[in-house]
Amino acid sequence: MKVICMIPARLGSQRLKQKNLRTLNGVPLFALAVRKALSAGVFDEVWANTESDELGRLALSEGAQFHKRPEKLADNTATSEDFVYEFFSRHECDYVVQLHSIAPLLSVEEIKGFTELLTESGCDTLLSVEEIILECLFDGSPVNFTFARKENSQDLKPVEKIAWSITGWKRETYMKAYESGGCGTYSGDVKSFPLKKYSAHVIKTEEDLRIAETLYSLTEGING
Amino acid sequence: MKVICMIPARLGSQRLKQKNLRTLNGVPLFALAVRKALSAGVFDEVWANTESDELGRLALSEGAQFHKRPEKLADNTATSEDFVYEFFSRHECDYVVQLHSIAPLLSVEEIKGFTELLTESGCDTLLSVEEIILECLFDGSPVNFTFARKENSQDLKPVEKIAWSITGWKRETYMKAYESGGCGTYSGDVKSFPLKKYSAHVIKTEEDLRIAETLYSLTEGING
Repeated sequence: MKVICMIPARLGSQRLKQKNLRTLNGVPLFALAVRKALSAGVFDEVWANTESDELGRLALSEGAQFHKRPEKLADNTATSEDFVYEFFSRHECDYVVQLHSIAPLLSVEEIKGFTELLTESGCDTLLSVEEIILECLFDGSPVNFTFARKENSQDLKPVEKIAWSITGWKRETYMKAYESGGCGTYSGDVKSFPLKKYSAHVIKTEEDLRIAETLYSLTEGING
Repeated sequence: MKVICMIPARLGSQRLKQKNLRTLNGVPLFALAVRKALSAGVFDEVWANTESDELGRLALSEGAQFHKRPEKLADNTATSEDFVYEFFSRHECDYVVQLHSIAPLLSVEEIKGFTELLTESGCDTLLSVEEIILECLFDGSPVNFTFARKENSQDLKPVEKIAWSITGWKRETYMKAYESGGCGTYSGDVKSFPLKKYSAHVIKTEEDLRIAETLYSLTEGING
């Protein structure tokens, strides 16, 4: 069985400029993701999927490999469906785990646990989620509670918010779904993997980066 | 029309000891809530609802009033349904806005906007919510998206997570529901009020307090 870790990264980013090169604790977010993937010790190969030669070189210097994403799949209109498929079409394997560099609080332990669940549970798609253990509404109606009584929030069945921090797919199922006009992202049997409290924090703005620094200093000892 | 702000507070707290007296930017969380309620300028009266004489005195010194909660409604088994009803039964008014001291990032502007919506929209219950603009699952099934295609997350209709930072009720509707064996918390016509990105952050642990400090320094200028 062959399991590949794929780290998608673009050099351009809209809100926070050159996000992937911004640092947390002195390490660029992109390099941090590569290091975690390598130290998880569960992947046969770790690839950066980027249009940028600069990020590609950084990947190589960190010990990963460089998959050069075609320019047409690197602009703001390109969908993850397309660039994930393009990667699958060029790399023979059983599973791909997509790791996002903008989720720097995801721990090495979580990467390991996620990959083990993906390859051992028999699912086709594994989504990382943040459990919301509070009352949720959709379209004005209760999702995980009832207006008929006030329950203790901690007794509620959680709603799961997809974090996209780490996502896994069985290659064959994804490719078949995509090629038949379906959706690879949610193909086959879909399972979820709950993250720790702060692991789902993602970097989109300067503020998010400041918060990540606080969280990092708080969770370093805990999440590893 | 009479609108009362009620700030529930207990001196004991399970995880973070004497939470209400912990400080943010030098001000005890409980005093911070009182000051915000007073400076919102939209309440006829501001009351602390607590079993603690110490918190009661702090409320009085900050310019609020002290509703002494009966001991039997102040332990860990007491429900909000019961202590809110007890408060309603002792204070004539049209609306009560319940403000929680453990949500210190809620802004004065939000308290004003919330109270205006409560009293002007004709609803009976107003809940503060955090909008989740990401794919959500419940019981393994999609809530606000479909497995049939991958959409851009920012185009999704949000799931609303109830924040409990600030909650408002029409007194008459709440009391009737409670007295007839129904649920006051979600009585009558229920509407929601979306909070700003970090306003829903609540303090339950030491870590939450550290994060609040970072958020406070970041949002002070923004949220006012």
